Amino acid sequence: MRYQLYYWPMIQGRGEYVRLALEDAGADYTDVARGKGGMSAMMTMMEARKGTPPFAPPFLKAGNLMIAQTANILLYLGARHGLAPKAEAGKMWVHQLQLTVADFVLEIHDTHHPLGPSLYYEDQKAPAKKRTEEFWKSRVQKYLGYFDEIVGANGGAWLTGRRVTYADLSLFQIVEGLRYAFPKRMQAFEKKIPRLTALRDRVAERPNIKAYLASERRIPFNEEGIFRRYKALDL
Amino acid sequence: MRYQLYYWPMIQGRGEYVRLALEDAGADYTDVARGKGGMSAMMTMMEARKGTPPFAPPFLKAGNLMIAQTANILLYLGARHGLAPKAEAGKMWVHQLQLTVADFVLEIHDTHHPLGPSLYYEDQKAPAKKRTEEFWKSRVQKYLGYFDEIVGANGGAWLTGRRVTYADLSLFQIVEGLRYAFPKRMQAFEKKIPRLTALRDRVAERPNIKAYLASERRIPFNEEGIFRRYKALDL
Repeated sequence: MRYQLYYWPMIQGRGEYVRLALEDAGADYTDVARGKGGMSAMMTMMEARKGTPPFAPPFLKAGNLMIAQTANILLYLGARHGLAPKAEAGKMWVHQLQLTVADFVLEIHDTHHPLGPSLYYEDQKAPAKKRTEEFWKSRVQKYLGYFDEIVGANGGAWLTGRRVTYADLSLFQIVEGLRYAFPKRMQAFEKKIPRLTALRDRVAERPNIKAYLASERRIPFNEEGIFRRYKALDL
Repeated sequence: MRYQLYYWPMIQGRGEYVRLALEDAGADYTDVARGKGGMSAMMTMMEARKGTPPFAPPFLKAGNLMIAQTANILLYLGARHGLAPKAEAGKMWVHQLQLTVADFVLEIHDTHHPLGPSLYYEDQKAPAKKRTEEFWKSRVQKYLGYFDEIVGANGGAWLTGRRVTYADLSLFQIVEGLRYAFPKRMQAFEKKIPRLTALRDRVAERPNIKAYLASERRIPFNEEGIFRRYKALDL
């Protein structure tokens, strides 16, 4: 089946967690909004208020299914492409981990947008600095320490043990993104999460991911996405 | 099966979406942390770093399964208690709606905690006022208008048509919570979401929910939860 992924064409954003899963699986997909007429196709689908309209991108068209919400899309793809355990308990566990990644992603976004997504960063620089301090003081260790310990408790390779899951691919993106957005803070912090940084390297070396990262399909990080490099927010 | 629900004992919070589903289903459950020794049992489980430890409450013990993340718990309960369609497409659609509710819940929480969950409201009153203004200016209409239109497009009773789902129960909680936290703003706003307020009434009249709301099991709203009534943030 050929999938159609709908996501903002200029950023990695939440769509990137889906792209990484599709790429690792070697799935056949079109990144619709990056092609000609794609943006207006995406907007039309979002403005529809019948059927199962998405609230926001990303969303995935898979045959007759239209699936939105990043973690929901990954739940679907994971089952079809061997990126999650088949048994119910394992499937729910990986989904649970992904939902915790999603919570963390929102907190990362809030570091530069504490007053909400409808104002520019430039209009909230002081609260952003304050929120970023709190984020690094009490949130990063809490989230990343949790994932790091789970990797350790399961043998040190992947979150669930010997097989990679979509949640591992997402953790690659988290480490990569924090390195981009907060290079100094992250460098100082990384020694606390050795198993996560090793996991990041293992993901980067997977042949399909390696090819993807080297391709033009991988949009570079920039200051419109989740992970933004603002000097004032780093050390 | 008798479920064990683990959640903070003094607030509705995210646990309430699970409680509403359990109550509507007439499921047999213990609200563990509200009983003797329950808090320490909950903390012990959270601090375990083997098996499938939850990152945060709520979590549900269901036989051998330990499930965390509100939307994940509801996905599980919905399938077992007739609170979601059985077919995959419908199941994913309701889950998608619930994940959008979850996003909105986080934005509601951020109105009083824009600088992060680790600081007190009293330490962030001015940014909270600003964030609340933005929230009512651009977010409430976007989210609630979306759900209101979906109810309308499916016949006007419930989100998916003729049968109630756990996502409908969650929308009851959203309307109820916004009425508590922002009585004046919500009163002025409600005429824009007539189908959602009618849905709220239909949920409140369901016999099991009605009995629950009248019982001591329903914790009253208070200023420790998601929905907080701060005069400075209302009109």
